[in-house]
Amino acid sequence: MAESAITVSHTRLQEFIVTALVAMKMPRAIAEVTAGLMVRTDLRGVDSHGIGMLPRYHELWQAGYIRMDAEPSVVRDEVATGLLDGQKGLGHYVSTQAMKKCIEKARTYGLGMVAVRNSGHYGAAANYSMMALEHDMIGLSMTNSPYVAMVPTFGRKAMLSTNPLSFAAPAGRHAPFVLDMATTTVAIGKLSVASRWNKPIPSGWALDDSGTPTTDPFVALKHRLVTPLGGTRDLGSHKGYGLGVMVDILSGVMSGAVYGDLFYRSDRQERRVQDVGHCFAAIDPVRFRPLGEFKHDMDDMFEALKSSAKADGHTRIWIAGEPEAESERKRRRDGIPLAPALLAQSNEMARGLGIAPMV
Amino acid sequence: MAESAITVSHTRLQEFIVTALVAMKMPRAIAEVTAGLMVRTDLRGVDSHGIGMLPRYHELWQAGYIRMDAEPSVVRDEVATGLLDGQKGLGHYVSTQAMKKCIEKARTYGLGMVAVRNSGHYGAAANYSMMALEHDMIGLSMTNSPYVAMVPTFGRKAMLSTNPLSFAAPAGRHAPFVLDMATTTVAIGKLSVASRWNKPIPSGWALDDSGTPTTDPFVALKHRLVTPLGGTRDLGSHKGYGLGVMVDILSGVMSGAVYGDLFYRSDRQERRVQDVGHCFAAIDPVRFRPLGEFKHDMDDMFEALKSSAKADGHTRIWIAGEPEAESERKRRRDGIPLAPALLAQSNEMARGLGIAPMV
Repeated sequence: MAESAITVSHTRLQEFIVTALVAMKMPRAIAEVTAGLMVRTDLRGVDSHGIGMLPRYHELWQAGYIRMDAEPSVVRDEVATGLLDGQKGLGHYVSTQAMKKCIEKARTYGLGMVAVRNSGHYGAAANYSMMALEHDMIGLSMTNSPYVAMVPTFGRKAMLSTNPLSFAAPAGRHAPFVLDMATTTVAIGKLSVASRWNKPIPSGWALDDSGTPTTDPFVALKHRLVTPLGGTRDLGSHKGYGLGVMVDILSGVMSGAVYGDLFYRSDRQERRVQDVGHCFAAIDPVRFRPLGEFKHDMDDMFEALKSSAKADGHTRIWIAGEPEAESERKRRRDGIPLAPALLAQSNEMARGLGIAPMV
Repeated sequence: MAESAITVSHTRLQEFIVTALVAMKMPRAIAEVTAGLMVRTDLRGVDSHGIGMLPRYHELWQAGYIRMDAEPSVVRDEVATGLLDGQKGLGHYVSTQAMKKCIEKARTYGLGMVAVRNSGHYGAAANYSMMALEHDMIGLSMTNSPYVAMVPTFGRKAMLSTNPLSFAAPAGRHAPFVLDMATTTVAIGKLSVASRWNKPIPSGWALDDSGTPTTDPFVALKHRLVTPLGGTRDLGSHKGYGLGVMVDILSGVMSGAVYGDLFYRSDRQERRVQDVGHCFAAIDPVRFRPLGEFKHDMDDMFEALKSSAKADGHTRIWIAGEPEAESERKRRRDGIPLAPALLAQSNEMARGLGIAPMV
């Protein structure tokens, strides 16, 4: 049986994360940006990528894999493109810098693309694609990771990360379109959430070490062998695998960061360097047609989708980003529910850092 | 039992398609480009999108949905972006024009994006993304279609096209990476191929009109109800659905073309206008790092993937584009096998056009 959740307000969560990151030597301004993105992720109901990651960041910092005092540097700033170096920091702050640059370039040239190398985990991909929305632009965000999880179609060894991508586009009356997806069937974070609540996982999400699907979240977490989106070759896993490689090409190969299983084959483990790569882009839709017309058609498409006939047993068709926007309204008002195991883990970390427990 | 195939050389196929298109009033230069792309698609083994489409193009031309004598026009040519109007023509030629513009812009600005409205079917998405390869660039190509096929997650009515996307990136020693995928579990073309050969389809590809999976290719073709990549919600169909909407936003909404199920709700059927939308982009990787380093890492990633442990019963892990490149080498030498039903259909069309039969 799962224990019941402890509810924490987003303001308390923000304060706790800032204090923890500052205790790990992150400059306060960077800690505030980082915590803001992590809390927004929890508000949006993406429990796998917000506070749930903090104990892991702490662990990576202790092991020397993250320099919390890093300040990103600009390696290249060309016409419509750019390249930043995360200087071994956590990924959140450098990613906001990269996306700001994309938006400026898109304002001038119609579109902009900025890649980041030598970075760390950047949390939820949508945090950066969504930055384009307040400028009435389309945003794109993707990342790889040194830690492999995705087994290629016809393989039995994890060779790629879950390589997520996010695409955000503004609408008019309707909430914006915000897609944020791992290119695996599920993100590793979902396995952690399932194990945190001790819930079985659907067959087809993950494999055991013989390559057979498992429903045990602990077995799945142990082997980290997840299938590409599609699940099996017959149902299109070669597409999910292809999308995963695409994200790795843009985030890792193009930026000059880690890719595929390179982390395990290079001296990066020895040197304690994660070398995560990200890629961001912004597109200004007014370069193609007037904004009012663009937003009108976005609303019209979404209304047609939402009002179309439902499958038996279902009453609602969703637009990507709607569940998260609804969670954000609710949790901003009612607080964020945390699993007892996560709270215990966070408070243990707090003790180690000499700061006050979360609650 | 499937009947055995008739083999045709790619030169004869090219000649036949050019003659047929010219008989439908397409200017010879445009017909040669169009036929070249269709034949290359058949050479690459993508039987659903080459000569297999010609009888359908003929039908659409007869019904007034395609102006074979159309010459595309430039609506906007801004800094790194552009917009073309297909003038109700077939999509192949205007798409080569759009991709050429992307490559020029990428040479100057690092990246370029060009959308197309008022177009027709453009064949295989990879034909255009691959144009970037000979310039050592990364290419992106996507399209929508007025004809719906994809049922949104939790729905039972087709509301989106199969909305394919293609991504191509150059490598060094290794064949380039060429992903070309419908955002549905399968493309409608695969249902046509299965029905042409009278083969059952895997459960999970398509639904009957009650929303239940069917294995009968004729039932599937009749209702055109295919699932988004992922197949079911548990296995991630909301991701395929989200990718499908993303392609529609970039191809249809951004360009000012048709999108979603709009064709059926607007006066386009009455006016005999398909108004297909496409979107293309090129990225110059040398803006991020030296080309030699980029290609070295592409080769290294592919070699690692290909040499990794295989699942029981499998001997090979593929890189996207490899099966097609191997098919092209083989079929260029040995000819292109055609289903008897397709040959009969093509020759019947030829009779109607007053041209010689294919064979």
